[in-house]
Amino acid sequence: MDALWQAVRFDKDGLVPAIAQQHDTGEVLMMAWMTREAIEETLKTGQVCYWSRSRQALWRKGETSGQVQRLVDLRVDCDGDTLLVLVDQTGVACHTGRRSCFYLAARNGELETIADVQTDPATLYGEDPEPAE
Amino acid sequence: MDALWQAVRFDKDGLVPAIAQQHDTGEVLMMAWMTREAIEETLKTGQVCYWSRSRQALWRKGETSGQVQRLVDLRVDCDGDTLLVLVDQTGVACHTGRRSCFYLAARNGELETIADVQTDPATLYGEDPEPAE
Repeated sequence: MDALWQAVRFDKDGLVPAIAQQHDTGEVLMMAWMTREAIEETLKTGQVCYWSRSRQALWRKGETSGQVQRLVDLRVDCDGDTLLVLVDQTGVACHTGRRSCFYLAARNGELETIADVQTDPATLYGEDPEPAE
Repeated sequence: MDALWQAVRFDKDGLVPAIAQQHDTGEVLMMAWMTREAIEETLKTGQVCYWSRSRQALWRKGETSGQVQRLVDLRVDCDGDTLLVLVDQTGVACHTGRRSCFYLAARNGELETIADVQTDPATLYGEDPEPAE
């Protein structure tokens, strides 16, 4: 993967933003951050792993909740500073229990909630929530 | 739009990442950055405006090339630190002349180019290219 490491431009904190998109429906599920180590683990295991900025640790998406993301394809943009991760999302991506994190829409001067909670977060995480970022 | 400004969390440089997605096909076109002023202009004009980090100026997407993005819907994620901008993209989003910036895929240990150039960048920009970020 030398070509990959030559292409990816990590920021000064060693991070690159990664957009997760459901591979078949095209739904944008979330945006999170990856380190080189997170990318390596994702490619090796086929399960998406991010870097939690709040916890300063690898964040194996769904490790607590079971809402894992299976890697389908990993893409790099033209200037190497953003990743697009095509995934197969089990259950919901958002810590609020919604399928996608992008459930607030700016419409008519208001912020509308445009998606319902599919799964009660309490049943996903109990008392040990995953990081939201 | 008080609710919007309460929801959006700009970083220490006053920026928030914005993912541009073609509203009907679901294709993720690019990721760029917005300031509060860029968001305000986007909402006011209905044409997507970013902040160019390289030029340190508002970046009216397509101003030079004609490859504009008409705003369809603007969404905020659960923790307010990423925007998803649904757009109707005229022509190509990428400065390389490809529809999407995410045309490199990490496959089988290599980086494959998975999309062709649709429009010669020279015809889009002449000698005054738009910023790539």
